[in-house]
Amino acid sequence: MDMETRISELSEHLTAHAEEGQTPGGPALRLQPDQETIIRVLDLLRNIMFPAHFGQKTIINDFAVKYEHGSQIAEVYTALSDQISLALLHHPDYCEAEKAVRREKGRELAAAFLDRLPNIQACLKTDVQAAFDGDPAARDKDEIIFSYPGFRAITVSRIAHELFLLDVPIIPRMMTEHAHFATGIDIHPGATIGRYFFIDHGTGVVIGETSVIGDRVKIYQGVTLGGLSTRAGQGLRGAKRHPTIGSDVTIYSNTSILGGETVIGEGCIIGGNCFITRSIPAHMRVTVQSPELRLQPDRRAAEGGCWVYEI
Amino acid sequence: MDMETRISELSEHLTAHAEEGQTPGGPALRLQPDQETIIRVLDLLRNIMFPAHFGQKTIINDFAVKYEHGSQIAEVYTALSDQISLALLHHPDYCEAEKAVRREKGRELAAAFLDRLPNIQACLKTDVQAAFDGDPAARDKDEIIFSYPGFRAITVSRIAHELFLLDVPIIPRMMTEHAHFATGIDIHPGATIGRYFFIDHGTGVVIGETSVIGDRVKIYQGVTLGGLSTRAGQGLRGAKRHPTIGSDVTIYSNTSILGGETVIGEGCIIGGNCFITRSIPAHMRVTVQSPELRLQPDRRAAEGGCWVYEI
Amino acid sequence: MDMETRISELSEHLTAHAEEGQTPGGPALRLQPDQETIIRVLDLLRNIMFPAHFGQKTIINDFAVKYEHGSQIAEVYTALSDQISLALLHHPDYCEAEKAVRREKGRELAAAFLDRLPNIQACLKTDVQAAFDGDPAARDKDEIIFSYPGFRAITVSRIAHELFLLDVPIIPRMMTEHAHFATGIDIHPGATIGRYFFIDHGTGVVIGETSVIGDRVKIYQGVTLGGLSTRAGQGLRGAKRHPTIGSDVTIYSNTSILGGETVIGEGCIIGGNCFITRSIPAHMRVTVQSPELRLQPDRRAAEGGCWVYEI
Amino acid sequence: MDMETRISELSEHLTAHAEEGQTPGGPALRLQPDQETIIRVLDLLRNIMFPAHFGQKTIINDFAVKYEHGSQIAEVYTALSDQISLALLHHPDYCEAEKAVRREKGRELAAAFLDRLPNIQACLKTDVQAAFDGDPAARDKDEIIFSYPGFRAITVSRIAHELFLLDVPIIPRMMTEHAHFATGIDIHPGATIGRYFFIDHGTGVVIGETSVIGDRVKIYQGVTLGGLSTRAGQGLRGAKRHPTIGSDVTIYSNTSILGGETVIGEGCIIGGNCFITRSIPAHMRVTVQSPELRLQPDRRAAEGGCWVYEI
Amino acid sequence: MDMETRISELSEHLTAHAEEGQTPGGPALRLQPDQETIIRVLDLLRNIMFPAHFGQKTIINDFAVKYEHGSQIAEVYTALSDQISLALLHHPDYCEAEKAVRREKGRELAAAFLDRLPNIQACLKTDVQAAFDGDPAARDKDEIIFSYPGFRAITVSRIAHELFLLDVPIIPRMMTEHAHFATGIDIHPGATIGRYFFIDHGTGVVIGETSVIGDRVKIYQGVTLGGLSTRAGQGLRGAKRHPTIGSDVTIYSNTSILGGETVIGEGCIIGGNCFITRSIPAHMRVTVQSPELRLQPDRRAAEGGCWVYEI
Amino acid sequence: MDMETRISELSEHLTAHAEEGQTPGGPALRLQPDQETIIRVLDLLRNIMFPAHFGQKTIINDFAVKYEHGSQIAEVYTALSDQISLALLHHPDYCEAEKAVRREKGRELAAAFLDRLPNIQACLKTDVQAAFDGDPAARDKDEIIFSYPGFRAITVSRIAHELFLLDVPIIPRMMTEHAHFATGIDIHPGATIGRYFFIDHGTGVVIGETSVIGDRVKIYQGVTLGGLSTRAGQGLRGAKRHPTIGSDVTIYSNTSILGGETVIGEGCIIGGNCFITRSIPAHMRVTVQSPELRLQPDRRAAEGGCWVYEI
Repeated sequence: MDMETRISELSEHLTAHAEEGQTPGGPALRLQPDQETIIRVLDLLRNIMFPAHFGQKTIINDFAVKYEHGSQIAEVYTALSDQISLALLHHPDYCEAEKAVRREKGRELAAAFLDRLPNIQACLKTDVQAAFDGDPAARDKDEIIFSYPGFRAITVSRIAHELFLLDVPIIPRMMTEHAHFATGIDIHPGATIGRYFFIDHGTGVVIGETSVIGDRVKIYQGVTLGGLSTRAGQGLRGAKRHPTIGSDVTIYSNTSILGGETVIGEGCIIGGNCFITRSIPAHMRVTVQSPELRLQPDRRAAEGGCWVYEI
Repeated sequence: MDMETRISELSEHLTAHAEEGQTPGGPALRLQPDQETIIRVLDLLRNIMFPAHFGQKTIINDFAVKYEHGSQIAEVYTALSDQISLALLHHPDYCEAEKAVRREKGRELAAAFLDRLPNIQACLKTDVQAAFDGDPAARDKDEIIFSYPGFRAITVSRIAHELFLLDVPIIPRMMTEHAHFATGIDIHPGATIGRYFFIDHGTGVVIGETSVIGDRVKIYQGVTLGGLSTRAGQGLRGAKRHPTIGSDVTIYSNTSILGGETVIGEGCIIGGNCFITRSIPAHMRVTVQSPELRLQPDRRAAEGGCWVYEI
Repeated sequence: MDMETRISELSEHLTAHAEEGQTPGGPALRLQPDQETIIRVLDLLRNIMFPAHFGQKTIINDFAVKYEHGSQIAEVYTALSDQISLALLHHPDYCEAEKAVRREKGRELAAAFLDRLPNIQACLKTDVQAAFDGDPAARDKDEIIFSYPGFRAITVSRIAHELFLLDVPIIPRMMTEHAHFATGIDIHPGATIGRYFFIDHGTGVVIGETSVIGDRVKIYQGVTLGGLSTRAGQGLRGAKRHPTIGSDVTIYSNTSILGGETVIGEGCIIGGNCFITRSIPAHMRVTVQSPELRLQPDRRAAEGGCWVYEI
Repeated sequence: MDMETRISELSEHLTAHAEEGQTPGGPALRLQPDQETIIRVLDLLRNIMFPAHFGQKTIINDFAVKYEHGSQIAEVYTALSDQISLALLHHPDYCEAEKAVRREKGRELAAAFLDRLPNIQACLKTDVQAAFDGDPAARDKDEIIFSYPGFRAITVSRIAHELFLLDVPIIPRMMTEHAHFATGIDIHPGATIGRYFFIDHGTGVVIGETSVIGDRVKIYQGVTLGGLSTRAGQGLRGAKRHPTIGSDVTIYSNTSILGGETVIGEGCIIGGNCFITRSIPAHMRVTVQSPELRLQPDRRAAEGGCWVYEI
Repeated sequence: MDMETRISELSEHLTAHAEEGQTPGGPALRLQPDQETIIRVLDLLRNIMFPAHFGQKTIINDFAVKYEHGSQIAEVYTALSDQISLALLHHPDYCEAEKAVRREKGRELAAAFLDRLPNIQACLKTDVQAAFDGDPAARDKDEIIFSYPGFRAITVSRIAHELFLLDVPIIPRMMTEHAHFATGIDIHPGATIGRYFFIDHGTGVVIGETSVIGDRVKIYQGVTLGGLSTRAGQGLRGAKRHPTIGSDVTIYSNTSILGGETVIGEGCIIGGNCFITRSIPAHMRVTVQSPELRLQPDRRAAEGGCWVYEI
Repeated sequence: MDMETRISELSEHLTAHAEEGQTPGGPALRLQPDQETIIRVLDLLRNIMFPAHFGQKTIINDFAVKYEHGSQIAEVYTALSDQISLALLHHPDYCEAEKAVRREKGRELAAAFLDRLPNIQACLKTDVQAAFDGDPAARDKDEIIFSYPGFRAITVSRIAHELFLLDVPIIPRMMTEHAHFATGIDIHPGATIGRYFFIDHGTGVVIGETSVIGDRVKIYQGVTLGGLSTRAGQGLRGAKRHPTIGSDVTIYSNTSILGGETVIGEGCIIGGNCFITRSIPAHMRVTVQSPELRLQPDRRAAEGGCWVYEI
């Protein structure tokens, strides 16, 4: 069989057996919110809330900042209106609605989101302070705002969470998945997170959809606030599946805390590498390690070229 | 000593002491497979296997899709033929071969790979279903296909594995290293993975070269299926160094399972943060935690400005 | 209230409540070192120290390499001089200094850094050997140099550490934060790391500012060498807060070792998922697991559509 | 008056006094055909009609060319359908029509255009031959197809002319204006041009809307086939305002031939720098120069530093 | 002699014999105005003066336009201030001045330029009208504003002329040289041009520095308003070297009018291909052609394969 | 007939009737010299010959320039070697040669070209002087080197001419066609041009392959030094078809001088808009205009809305 026939048959086979898309209206990507526009909106929101740090480089006069500021907010409003109206095709109440209805709803939701920006900004300022207080290696707050991945992730998360509360489909998840890519920190937009929150280093952190986190919480890299595993996922949608963390809790690296009824009381300090599936009273220090580490002299076989480090 | 002399001497020193490249034929990169082309091939394969989701945006008619499909398969075939023929310079049987021989072998292997695409596509469809069943936060399958890093990683892994089985050098590893960069999930192309596989969140997952994984397995972020450490690595090449995971196993976050003789029996549920170096019978629930967590009231020193959270 | 008024008020509110930047001289980014230039410098340094692997693709003659080499070193010198002089605005001794003074100091520090390149190159060659000896999956050293994220991270780290020792502000941190983004490995530029160092896989590794690591150490993904948590961070600046790891130590995946007084004696093998806050004598094998894993038959409820995998 | 007030007043003034756009539906560019897409269509058409010269570089197998070919034609069809439907907003019969009507008409016109491609290709092959026969400096036909600006301009012109005949608004003009930018040759899409046409060098050539040109005509740089000037332009729309050039005519550089009733008889040779506003019988050689050039010895003033070359 | 030595000697030779730059402060380009910024300013000015046609595509609401407008004017002001301050290094009065002085002068000149924008806009509206009245092929004014090269050139010219009048060095010339590249129309920024000016087609038009052009003038492609040639150029700087064109004059294609004392009286119609070096009274129709064209039957030699079209 | 069938048939028709490429080895572009590389070489050569004006912006130290210089020359050498070896496929002596033979010849020709750079640089310095002496509008030589299109065109022309003399196929023409695109000036690489040459403005200038131009010649926009038209082009290849211009000649705008036996004697001043096909003795001032311009009062019909400017 020649190559042309093989390609032709392969093409037909793959198309015939492909997963069908669920986007209303056909096979194309056209009706999805646009990933690049969403990232642009995130960049603009960062500029708007931190104008002293992320103002446009070519403009430095005060009067210019004012116009730029207004222009950027207006761009956020219009871009977000557009993208939300596309996203509403995935919303059970709107997927069948007229385009004009979705556009109007898009504008309404974008405006409602803008009203929440002052509150997001205020929270983020407490997060900067938390990182500054919590990391002796931080030279100043600028360094945190410019380069800490934990701060970048919480910024996106607080933005996405407000859109989630407004019941905007898909877009909040696109935002946090982008932050996940950039920082290794995966915070579901549904998670409720208090003020003065600090994630140090952050790679591998997972915070599930129905998590609730109090004020002044600090967590380290590799911490999971997750759900118990299921294979009947869609039946559990909407149930509280992730833990509740009280205020003033510290959680060390690589600890996993699972389950919707698991509550970590306020002021607890949770050691690293714990696997916790039940509640902890307030003000406890928790470790899972045995009273004594098991230490034994290394009996590694020295002979031969092919040993491994048994443990 | 003036700057020009310093630079000149430095240049000579660094060149004289540099690691020598092992690519046949000299110091240049020219004879390496090209990273951008490899990524392009991965994107095309995704388009081909999921045409309803990743078809080219500017073309929407059915008749257009057919041509585009054929054109993309043809491009995969030719690009992969080229890249494989370059990669064969790293293959013990072909590094000395004539260019024409390598080109012919490249075409042969690329064609053989295409024959396996229907099987890859079929497996990936079970993986989508696994994610949909396993994650209550997934609204629909589109969301999984578009944005789940775990699905992105397994897609690349299944592609790279088929090339690995065909004994194509280097390219499978370049593919999975790219997925590692994009998702934080590091699956060696040698790993054998069953159907209906789901990696949730995924950051920090490592699956070693000689791992064997059954059907319907679900693993979480930070899980390692690894080898015991060695410092005589090249002597162990080809030996089974990574574990075997039975079907229907669930492994929670941050657990490490090590060793080539370690077998996790089917249906096991492995808790998080375990460190397992020996086999587990089927249908066990495994935790490493002591019967009671060690809880103690927090004796944190309140005085002074410089305390730490001891644990 | 119409949209224009809302945007205008929102703009004023956000500007009035924004975090103030600490960069001397105003609100702009202009006086920061430039991220893209820093990345360019890292790429050039890689080319210079590994000319057989990363030489410019369009030039292959030996005489051309010589000029290219010199040209690249010269570009590193001038670019680094510029960027350091900007960074000195963040240095307590230089933030008030004349621009000319900072420029002169920038050149002096850049030249001093160049003098250390041969030593960095020599260390990196031992790191390549460590990866080759430690990973049976590595086909040859080229594969390590081209694609191992652990090697990429340690390359950046050794560069950044020399700048850190020269007391260059900000830039070392920008460099390692870039490597963190690309590899998931977060090594603070202050960390002191011996020769023949190997990080396998690497996602989630954290090595803190005052860590000290001996020769021939091997660590796996998810390992943390960290500090105990604090909320009075700035008071601890400069104190030794991270552990000391002796030579010939191996640390398995996801283990955390914390505290400035914690010392892991030479030759130790530390199992995975340990959480260690106190010192370990030399030549110990350490695991935190209980003598027996807790195994119980799975009592998963088979009835109904909505069970979870309890653990 | 401060800068902010000045900018604000200036902004208001300029907006209030701006030319109003005539695009139906508002001030935006959104409903214009897209310049980049039009250029993309031109490039694809060139690839399709000259597959041996402009095939995609990464695909070389014959079976691949077939798919690529079909895919490119399909892309032309869909892109052109879209752009024409936008352009119809400028068509008197369609500017008020429903979007669906315009889309259907767009598809119909795009399909009709495709039917004319074989004829365009056939004409262009005669043009290549004309250039090869007419320019001793041409080494082979490849050189003409790859690099002759005159051939590039006539290619665009023949494409645009077919769309003009189909009464597609705007797009034909956008195409020829692009060719004008790239080659300095300005051929209105309305011009009727015979087979075996050659424009040598070409910069400054202008061929007006109602020009009619026979077969085997050759013109040089700077030649104008234009209209007599008017200041009541819109009243003349549709009238024949540009000349008719018979077959086998040659027109040397910088000659202007003007007027709708001006006819150059077949086989004429028109010298350079003529300004012709009346008809010429067939088979004439035409020059405007006086029998004798006026030659005088140069009386240039040699004294002083500031003379000019009087003439 | 080996290649390395040849290159080394060649490098030294070329550097030693290179033309020295005249920019104060050394060999680098750093102190030149930046070409890309200048082009950006031109694009912004077009957007500002024609907001209905060139507003930013992503923003369509009225309130957004207002902010965008202000932001763009502010960007023009700051970018132009910067670039002018760099350009002043080429101004005899400022090349030795302190940087602060030049910056202040840059701001002053940029502000003075902004004050002239309303006048420029008003002139350009008359130019659009002139093109619409003068070209029967123009369907509407949008087409002129979007795509006529003659309009593009006069837009740049009117902007550059105001900067020229403000005695800004270099930048006006950079602007018109950019328009020359894009349209083939070369208008020196010093030229004084009245209202309602139309250049049709335009390729090859040259308008010299000291030209003065009245209102309602229309010129065609290839028209030169130039100076008599000189080889003592710098001695003539500032002298009127280019012609004066009265109001209501029409000049056909490829005509050259030279000399500072040459005056074309108002209402004249100048035929194509004239070469005029002396003044013409008002209301004349001027042609240079002899009463009769010289027509002769074509005596082209029909025999042989190698004849040319003699003339 | 449905769209799919139409496209399929169209595709087959167009491929079957396409012009065949003449490149040896098949239908692809792969074996052509690469346009972007050629442009890169031109940019590098400009940097090398005018280091004070076009040195790389990021490097300013003297010692850095030296390395950059050497590196750029080396890049020119290797890139040109590669491209010439590809171009030799179009050379009658080499199109059948082994690849290794062509590569060796490529290197030899590239080296020979480098030897001519000092002479090119020396000529270009006289051209800068000619422009400075000949244009009162030039403020300084920097302005000429940075922005005069005439200087840009002669720079490319002098480079391409040396390659033409070395009998390199295609590449010289690609170079000058690029300059034609950028400046509107079309100089064939075969033309022989003396020192101190100045093209003012330049749009529309054409200088044919066998033109010979003396020293200190100055020509204006629209000047053609061309051949008499032929339709038997290939028979004339190699014959002298373009004029000879003596030293110290000035040619005004839009004049055409044609024919291989036409000689313009030294010191002549040729007026604009002449069409000259026979020789002119030395030191003549030449105009084609009649003793008196034909002036007539304008009898333009004032009545009615639809008159034109008859002439």
